[in-house]
Amino acid sequence: MDIKVYLHQKRALVDAALERFLPVADGPLARHVEAMRYSLLAGGKRVRPILCLAAAEALLPEGAAQLEPLLPAACALECIHTYSLVHDDLPAMDNDDLRRGKPTNHVVFGEAAAILAGDGLLSFAFELLADTGSSLPAEARLQAVRLLSRAVGPFGMVGGQVLDMENEGQEISFDTLRRIHSLKTGALITASVETGAVLAGAGREELSALAGYGRQIGLAFQIVDDLLNVESTTEQLGKAAGSDAQRRKATYPAFFGVEETRKRAHEAVAGALEAIAGFDQRAEPLRELARYIVNRKR
Amino acid sequence: MDIKVYLHQKRALVDAALERFLPVADGPLARHVEAMRYSLLAGGKRVRPILCLAAAEALLPEGAAQLEPLLPAACALECIHTYSLVHDDLPAMDNDDLRRGKPTNHVVFGEAAAILAGDGLLSFAFELLADTGSSLPAEARLQAVRLLSRAVGPFGMVGGQVLDMENEGQEISFDTLRRIHSLKTGALITASVETGAVLAGAGREELSALAGYGRQIGLAFQIVDDLLNVESTTEQLGKAAGSDAQRRKATYPAFFGVEETRKRAHEAVAGALEAIAGFDQRAEPLRELARYIVNRKR
Repeated sequence: MDIKVYLHQKRALVDAALERFLPVADGPLARHVEAMRYSLLAGGKRVRPILCLAAAEALLPEGAAQLEPLLPAACALECIHTYSLVHDDLPAMDNDDLRRGKPTNHVVFGEAAAILAGDGLLSFAFELLADTGSSLPAEARLQAVRLLSRAVGPFGMVGGQVLDMENEGQEISFDTLRRIHSLKTGALITASVETGAVLAGAGREELSALAGYGRQIGLAFQIVDDLLNVESTTEQLGKAAGSDAQRRKATYPAFFGVEETRKRAHEAVAGALEAIAGFDQRAEPLRELARYIVNRKR
Repeated sequence: MDIKVYLHQKRALVDAALERFLPVADGPLARHVEAMRYSLLAGGKRVRPILCLAAAEALLPEGAAQLEPLLPAACALECIHTYSLVHDDLPAMDNDDLRRGKPTNHVVFGEAAAILAGDGLLSFAFELLADTGSSLPAEARLQAVRLLSRAVGPFGMVGGQVLDMENEGQEISFDTLRRIHSLKTGALITASVETGAVLAGAGREELSALAGYGRQIGLAFQIVDDLLNVESTTEQLGKAAGSDAQRRKATYPAFFGVEETRKRAHEAVAGALEAIAGFDQRAEPLRELARYIVNRKR
């Protein structure tokens, strides 16, 4: 398979669905919808929705993979990811002006509107999730709500951002760095894989294997993010390069240097592939995604 | 029945459950949990959880009303209400220093931590909701997720706050005021009643009647809020009195004067009672709650 073609196709599917689920609005809430759409449709890579869909494909009958019922859930993941970026960029948080090559939400819409755009996207994600595939068993859909809300809540993604803020500019241990990564980035990426698995009817062992894949992928993703922040230009990244070092944020390269960090990223990918070694060729997209994540340039 | 005793008992039930669901935490997230608990356990009246429980009682077998399975859902409503207060009070929003007689969240914990406490509470609400009463049918629990996420999302509560911010200090029509009220306050109050109804197994007509009750109660609640802001002292309210007029926020009294406003509040309560006229004595708490809401002093 050609991963670039796969990514292109799946991204188009997700982008079209996002457009359908949150279209331009008239009336008094037009500006609010515009603020949400501004960040949601700002050219993200759609890694999380695609991981969700690929996990489902690894379990569904080949050829007949009906991904349509999973699209609301896949889009919910992107809404949550986007909300987290909008809030992280706020003046009171990381105070970033640039994201995906465009001015950040609060720069364009103002701080209050940006906070509310984030709040709106988070709630909207659960709307989408609750509406996901009425053809799927209610128990599976409820399980998706449960695992996703846990992954992004106070002891998941939000907790990771809390630790990141609290430790900024301080000497931290590698254990703390690992905890921040695993909560702030890893939890949602793992949950993206799990959401696809659960909605595709994964059994207990399949779910456990795919969750293991998700954890390793999440780790690889964050390590590569750290590397890119060191090695890329602002133009390549679409956000301020070198900003981690400037803020004295702890990163993998700061702990281990670039070479060892790159090695660890590859180890994580190997771990991800190992976790799903028992899956057949329907898991090929997941395998290619793992390799893509470690080799990506932005 | 004595509504004061009822409120006292239900509030104690909700407070104990909140304490159980979000206990003091050790470890790296201790401060984050403390920030969430600070606002969550700040002596709220628990109107929304109590409306949820009372709606369930109106449908469940008398005497045997097993409210225990509904407590996570009831607490989820309070988490969502609290998150909305924490975010509304932020410097970029209403910039309030005082809430429920205490310094607001961002005054105590800082702006970033307050944004994240709100984000955490919103996500945590959906965790609670997804965990609600595993003895209840999955379809009913999913419906609760669906109606609550809609009520609090971009076209519900968050949308109401957007309109409120956008129109602050401007001349607005009564229609706009009514829309702001109905989204910002009404939607969550209505959803509180609906959540209790759905989880107690309401049929279509029962749900529709209870939703009608909820809409009228929500209206009454907001009208009375406007009145209290005009008539009370800061000490009585636990937040800045007269702040609406100071900010030139549109309110019912500003449109109609105090007497006519009071009359409209009573009409809304009458409408609420009318909506549930067909219910038996198990709906007595709902009836008393309607009367309480219009006569409350804070």
